[in-house]
Amino acid sequence: MSHREDDDRHLARAVALSREHMENGAGGPFGAVIVRDGVVLAEGWNEVTSTNDPTAHAEVVAIRRACREVSEFSLKGATLYASCEPCPMCLASAYWARVSRVVYANTRDEAAAIGFDDSFIYDEIPLPPERRSLPCEHSPREDAKAVFEAWLNKADKIRY
Amino acid sequence: MSHREDDDRHLARAVALSREHMENGAGGPFGAVIVRDGVVLAEGWNEVTSTNDPTAHAEVVAIRRACREVSEFSLKGATLYASCEPCPMCLASAYWARVSRVVYANTRDEAAAIGFDDSFIYDEIPLPPERRSLPCEHSPREDAKAVFEAWLNKADKIRY
Repeated sequence: MSHREDDDRHLARAVALSREHMENGAGGPFGAVIVRDGVVLAEGWNEVTSTNDPTAHAEVVAIRRACREVSEFSLKGATLYASCEPCPMCLASAYWARVSRVVYANTRDEAAAIGFDDSFIYDEIPLPPERRSLPCEHSPREDAKAVFEAWLNKADKIRY
Repeated sequence: MSHREDDDRHLARAVALSREHMENGAGGPFGAVIVRDGVVLAEGWNEVTSTNDPTAHAEVVAIRRACREVSEFSLKGATLYASCEPCPMCLASAYWARVSRVVYANTRDEAAAIGFDDSFIYDEIPLPPERRSLPCEHSPREDAKAVFEAWLNKADKIRY
């Protein structure tokens, strides 16, 4: 199959997951699939309300499962297929996981139209901490700076 | 104790966790504490490299644990104390968890100075999807739109 046909197939699967697990009550209508070198590493779907975990978005769930599958904290070379544009939490988790490409169907605006905060959070993240609707206060501390200094000098650290 | 003394105590604890678990090899030098109405709901620390989970930042770990503790997906009214400014993943997870306030010690720039991508990811998130260094491709689909429509019409949905 062509690259394009692979994309269509994996994105269709992400959408099918979004419907299946919305219908069975797992959470919101979101699904995700992670693929590397033609191999499906993991699937995920939203489980926020069924597991009482606000971080259990489809993409985060899929990333965690894929990393468990490969026993690594990097998914370099992998593509994340998502039934909806990843929210800032999920997008940032894709950066931390070193995902190489994201393909999505619905948009943050379409998510906003059915009651999800993705677009609002996208607007909040770039604001200076003191201007956000969620108050973020900087309270500098010497002990905190000293821990960073210790990390810099740690001989056996594992970078990520 | 005054409000200010409570803040100092909880933030000092977040910093102590960041040092303790960096030293014992759990992951990077980051700690977090979640407090509501004077009660510590959960503590967290970075476990990325020890658990092969790129989403296991201190704040995310603490949010997940706090929600498990209260058996709810909302932490409305809670304060998140973090030894470092939350990265976009952690900040967005705080929004999704309905945390009411964030207090942090080190900054994203101080994190960048010791090798962490927080600042880079903050710069990437607000970019149009096609201009990010992580390619994000929009591939609209009718089946995906239909799932959102189904959510809108779902009678027994649990909003979050």
